[in-house]
Amino acid sequence: MTQDDPQAVVDLRSDTVTRPGPGMRAAMAGAEVGDDLFGEDPTVRALEERLAGLFGFPAALFVPSGVMANQIGLQLLVGPGEELVCEAEAHVLAHEEASPARYGGIQTRTVSAERGVLTAAALAGVVRRGNPYTLGTRAVEVEQTHTRAGGTVHPLETLHGIRELTARAGLAVHMDGARIWNAMAATGTSAAAYGATVDSLAVCLSKGLGAPVGSVLLLAAEHLPRARRLRHGLGGGMRQSGILAAAGLYALDHHVERVHEDHAHAGLLARGLRDAGFAVRPPETNIVLVEVPGAEAITARAAEEGVRVTAPGPDVVRLVTHLDVGGAACRRAVEVLVDVMTEHVREARLVAPAGHW
Amino acid sequence: MTQDDPQAVVDLRSDTVTRPGPGMRAAMAGAEVGDDLFGEDPTVRALEERLAGLFGFPAALFVPSGVMANQIGLQLLVGPGEELVCEAEAHVLAHEEASPARYGGIQTRTVSAERGVLTAAALAGVVRRGNPYTLGTRAVEVEQTHTRAGGTVHPLETLHGIRELTARAGLAVHMDGARIWNAMAATGTSAAAYGATVDSLAVCLSKGLGAPVGSVLLLAAEHLPRARRLRHGLGGGMRQSGILAAAGLYALDHHVERVHEDHAHAGLLARGLRDAGFAVRPPETNIVLVEVPGAEAITARAAEEGVRVTAPGPDVVRLVTHLDVGGAACRRAVEVLVDVMTEHVREARLVAPAGHW
Amino acid sequence: MTQDDPQAVVDLRSDTVTRPGPGMRAAMAGAEVGDDLFGEDPTVRALEERLAGLFGFPAALFVPSGVMANQIGLQLLVGPGEELVCEAEAHVLAHEEASPARYGGIQTRTVSAERGVLTAAALAGVVRRGNPYTLGTRAVEVEQTHTRAGGTVHPLETLHGIRELTARAGLAVHMDGARIWNAMAATGTSAAAYGATVDSLAVCLSKGLGAPVGSVLLLAAEHLPRARRLRHGLGGGMRQSGILAAAGLYALDHHVERVHEDHAHAGLLARGLRDAGFAVRPPETNIVLVEVPGAEAITARAAEEGVRVTAPGPDVVRLVTHLDVGGAACRRAVEVLVDVMTEHVREARLVAPAGHW
Amino acid sequence: MTQDDPQAVVDLRSDTVTRPGPGMRAAMAGAEVGDDLFGEDPTVRALEERLAGLFGFPAALFVPSGVMANQIGLQLLVGPGEELVCEAEAHVLAHEEASPARYGGIQTRTVSAERGVLTAAALAGVVRRGNPYTLGTRAVEVEQTHTRAGGTVHPLETLHGIRELTARAGLAVHMDGARIWNAMAATGTSAAAYGATVDSLAVCLSKGLGAPVGSVLLLAAEHLPRARRLRHGLGGGMRQSGILAAAGLYALDHHVERVHEDHAHAGLLARGLRDAGFAVRPPETNIVLVEVPGAEAITARAAEEGVRVTAPGPDVVRLVTHLDVGGAACRRAVEVLVDVMTEHVREARLVAPAGHW
Repeated sequence: MTQDDPQAVVDLRSDTVTRPGPGMRAAMAGAEVGDDLFGEDPTVRALEERLAGLFGFPAALFVPSGVMANQIGLQLLVGPGEELVCEAEAHVLAHEEASPARYGGIQTRTVSAERGVLTAAALAGVVRRGNPYTLGTRAVEVEQTHTRAGGTVHPLETLHGIRELTARAGLAVHMDGARIWNAMAATGTSAAAYGATVDSLAVCLSKGLGAPVGSVLLLAAEHLPRARRLRHGLGGGMRQSGILAAAGLYALDHHVERVHEDHAHAGLLARGLRDAGFAVRPPETNIVLVEVPGAEAITARAAEEGVRVTAPGPDVVRLVTHLDVGGAACRRAVEVLVDVMTEHVREARLVAPAGHW
Repeated sequence: MTQDDPQAVVDLRSDTVTRPGPGMRAAMAGAEVGDDLFGEDPTVRALEERLAGLFGFPAALFVPSGVMANQIGLQLLVGPGEELVCEAEAHVLAHEEASPARYGGIQTRTVSAERGVLTAAALAGVVRRGNPYTLGTRAVEVEQTHTRAGGTVHPLETLHGIRELTARAGLAVHMDGARIWNAMAATGTSAAAYGATVDSLAVCLSKGLGAPVGSVLLLAAEHLPRARRLRHGLGGGMRQSGILAAAGLYALDHHVERVHEDHAHAGLLARGLRDAGFAVRPPETNIVLVEVPGAEAITARAAEEGVRVTAPGPDVVRLVTHLDVGGAACRRAVEVLVDVMTEHVREARLVAPAGHW
Repeated sequence: MTQDDPQAVVDLRSDTVTRPGPGMRAAMAGAEVGDDLFGEDPTVRALEERLAGLFGFPAALFVPSGVMANQIGLQLLVGPGEELVCEAEAHVLAHEEASPARYGGIQTRTVSAERGVLTAAALAGVVRRGNPYTLGTRAVEVEQTHTRAGGTVHPLETLHGIRELTARAGLAVHMDGARIWNAMAATGTSAAAYGATVDSLAVCLSKGLGAPVGSVLLLAAEHLPRARRLRHGLGGGMRQSGILAAAGLYALDHHVERVHEDHAHAGLLARGLRDAGFAVRPPETNIVLVEVPGAEAITARAAEEGVRVTAPGPDVVRLVTHLDVGGAACRRAVEVLVDVMTEHVREARLVAPAGHW
Repeated sequence: MTQDDPQAVVDLRSDTVTRPGPGMRAAMAGAEVGDDLFGEDPTVRALEERLAGLFGFPAALFVPSGVMANQIGLQLLVGPGEELVCEAEAHVLAHEEASPARYGGIQTRTVSAERGVLTAAALAGVVRRGNPYTLGTRAVEVEQTHTRAGGTVHPLETLHGIRELTARAGLAVHMDGARIWNAMAATGTSAAAYGATVDSLAVCLSKGLGAPVGSVLLLAAEHLPRARRLRHGLGGGMRQSGILAAAGLYALDHHVERVHEDHAHAGLLARGLRDAGFAVRPPETNIVLVEVPGAEAITARAAEEGVRVTAPGPDVVRLVTHLDVGGAACRRAVEVLVDVMTEHVREARLVAPAGHW
């Protein structure tokens, strides 16, 4: 890859922007395929079986996106008119177009957790036992890692605590594990250990793993027929999707091992910006959040200099490392961002009333 | 009424248990009626016009319940796939069968507020501006008074703060004012002053006011045709409902003025229990919450003694005053409850490990 | 009642326009009541038990409208993403705001039946057995009598045929029996005989029976807890609704026996109009349909003359008899309508191109 | 391709079973891609622009399936609580898991049309004008070609008639054009001529055109932002989907021209079976329906002989031609099916009472 070409744009907006390399493209081009709506695509089946085995689930379902994996998972566990508790900044609430309510009829009640990491203690005061006059809670959703909080990790013991609480209360647990690969790389926890803490688990192939399209929902065997129908009704039934699944299998072979590199690069970015005096939250995985006023203006200026980042809030700049950015690119990003942010803060000081900062 | 009959059961479970007296029954029996689905019931129309005038709204709609008033109000302001922010213990979340999500497709995101009282400051960190990748907030819901928090009041200035914040952010506000009569009685704030702070307002005739059935949704004139259709589709289109509206008009004439008596009785209950050493949250209106372990057992024992209360949580006993309980009944309730709770706590001490309490 | 006052408006728009008379009003005024959300209203309970017994069902639920009785009945039998087959002109499709789909997520597939009367033969080609790739049918809905078809009756043997077909196919049957009283009066079939042909049955108290408000859903005992929750979520949970139920009980005592009078009056109307040369469908119960061009104009002119009818289509005028119109009123209506329709047709001939009719 | 290998299974179950050949695989392997959720995939954009141009629409959206293209199209034209009229055997009703109702809140009312071909005359008696008491129709859906009716074609003049009726009535029209390529090939009508008759049009790349995955929704430009959000909420937002779009572009270049070959093969199948005495509906495009009792048993026996067909009904066998079956394969299919069906009918005669057929 030309990821360290000094002229190239450094794209740190998201780990979804990776492009498949020659090896992955060859795997897709050579994939054996069939009609997956008839359950006849051998490559899709191989991918589903491999992930089921890895995370310790009896069944798996390939779907076109992380959103669909989450929506099917939630609809399997929570019926219309039932309640789901999740963290207030969860991806399923902020970035999935209200589909739990709109398509699943699922009520969401939210709890704010420190760094987005839900705990049994936080949940204990929120989940509710129902009675004929009061709606009870049916399930809990956990996001591993938590995107909007900056790629934070739910430690295994925390998940065990949640599992105990929910088991006692008769609640199901769904995990949005779009970035579970990053949690595994950061902590050394196994896929199966995480898998054992939840009832359904959505894992994504197109973020840290670098496949072009696809997520897989891991679930109970008895849920599979309904899950297939839900997928079809949402419009996720695909035909020769082995083309895409082949990229997933390639990613499992070649890209899981290297996820820790993204974390090293995130550390490099964080240190560079902190050393220049900026308020950086120490990254746990591959997402770096910088607290700096004027985030949108900074984002625009950095883009002009060939460094693309995002502004998830007015005072927050976000950088995400991935397969397609190497060390040199990160160093260049630090240089550009330090310049742009320093200049922006200086200008802001000049126009702001004395003492504004 | 025989509300101070020493033998009678004292029913403090809810202010919904009131039974219509002779005056109200006579009003219902004599009501002029027509087919309200054709807009031809003069008594319904009179009630709608009177409440619209009182709260300063251009339009009003009579419906069979507070739940329906809230659901129509929310559906008018928030579309399927849009987001509503409300307090974590709101009635619309705990006691309306997830209807915002199930029937409205509305995503709820919640914020925990001190004593259930939402403020602009609490909302500022929660409401979200949308963009093509992020779901924004569409409306805020406020409950006046807040039932589960114990009949707490949103002060007028707090509501003004919420109105300013939401106006700046382009958000609508719905108020579940099932017990707004209690807020008015407790603070002296006028109906119109409260009404001016929100876009739609549900008021109930069958709680503090003592009518047998019915709520009224106050709303914008341009929303009325859609509101009528929503009412019909939910099954709230009634025919000669002037029979019920007549009770509402009677209650407006005779029962608004006396709501403060319920507050005095709540104070009497609270003092009696506190003087006996129990942890009572000072009531702001007509709901008294006592923190005491073993609430369900206490509730059962008190019922045997002719005093009916509820246990909204394992360590909380709730008492609600209303039209059908007078001072003597309240004094008897205090006696019974002090006995029952004292005995229960003593027994609990005997079986609990030392120092448990 | 002054139903034969020669000056009074004759209101034949619907049998929903009846106003309660002194006896019914006295029953309401004297009703013993309680909080029905706690299951404590003795009059509601009495009404539910009486209707359950009459139609041979183990359970019953009082609700504010026929729409709500139908929606709860359908939601009990058909889940989100399942299919209901009904007649193309069914009330649940034309007059219930698409609530089966909107609130129940229920797909409707329709079949046109002669005079609205579904038969096993008509259904056989329409209900579908499902498989993993094809959505099957879950239930069938039947309307007794069929409103839009003109109050037509499903004979008992026809219902037996539908019951056999659906039993073989594993389908449930809901009956919208808003006007089942008319079918009983017209055929002499017993309530229990009709009740035995379906899984749930909605009967209305405010059409032929003349109560101001209310319907009752008859259902299986195991469905009752869920039905109560559905009622609450739709906003149909009422408090001292015994006031309304008392009117229903009064109607059962006094108005069931007289429904045949409405049919006699419908016959009187039909004969009068047919004798004057108009195309009248012979009424089976209390609804008369006249095929005549310019129905809306005719409706407007007749109203000026004190006779209110409706125009369900551009070439159809509808007349409905009920408790509040007697023989003299019907005779007056015939006179007015013959004049208005004759004049209208004559005028239409003058302005229409030759041969238009 | 090895499509005429005499040993190979002849798969006539559906035109969705085609596998990409070397040219299409090379196109996918070499596709230039980007993150399509950010609108940055050049190949997806090229496909969308090409199809928009071809069918004369201002905008287009690539989605993972025909189901999703239909559901987004319908949700754009028909809101929750509104009504869609479609043919009774439409794909959106039989094979899309009730998603119009379940996810769109859309009521469906259906009309049975000869050979599945809707006409203005058939619709005239079904679409309904709304008023405050009656739900009106909002849109009509047409399926080109009609799958369950056997690939039947709506002629252009028929579509013009529907367009005129719906324009007068203020109704929108969505076309499920999954097999519009077959209609074009059969009639010589241009894509743009068909496109001009509807408001939104779903075309599929993975049926007659032989691409592995994907459909495109053609729509109004002002609908595009909402369509993108709907796609995301349903779980159809994909990242580097240019891999799939490249196959679609390749299919447009190489497979549109050859669709008529599938029709020739269907004709070959139909003649062969008819000449052997079976009741074959004359195929208009690439779907052959044979009326023969015992369809499921026949399907099972034929599969043992290497010929795969389906049984859409108990007395109907279906054969679908496509890119991966050539003339020799079709001739072999005729031989096998004639044998199997003849034997089956003979056996059935033996066991059936005399004169059964």
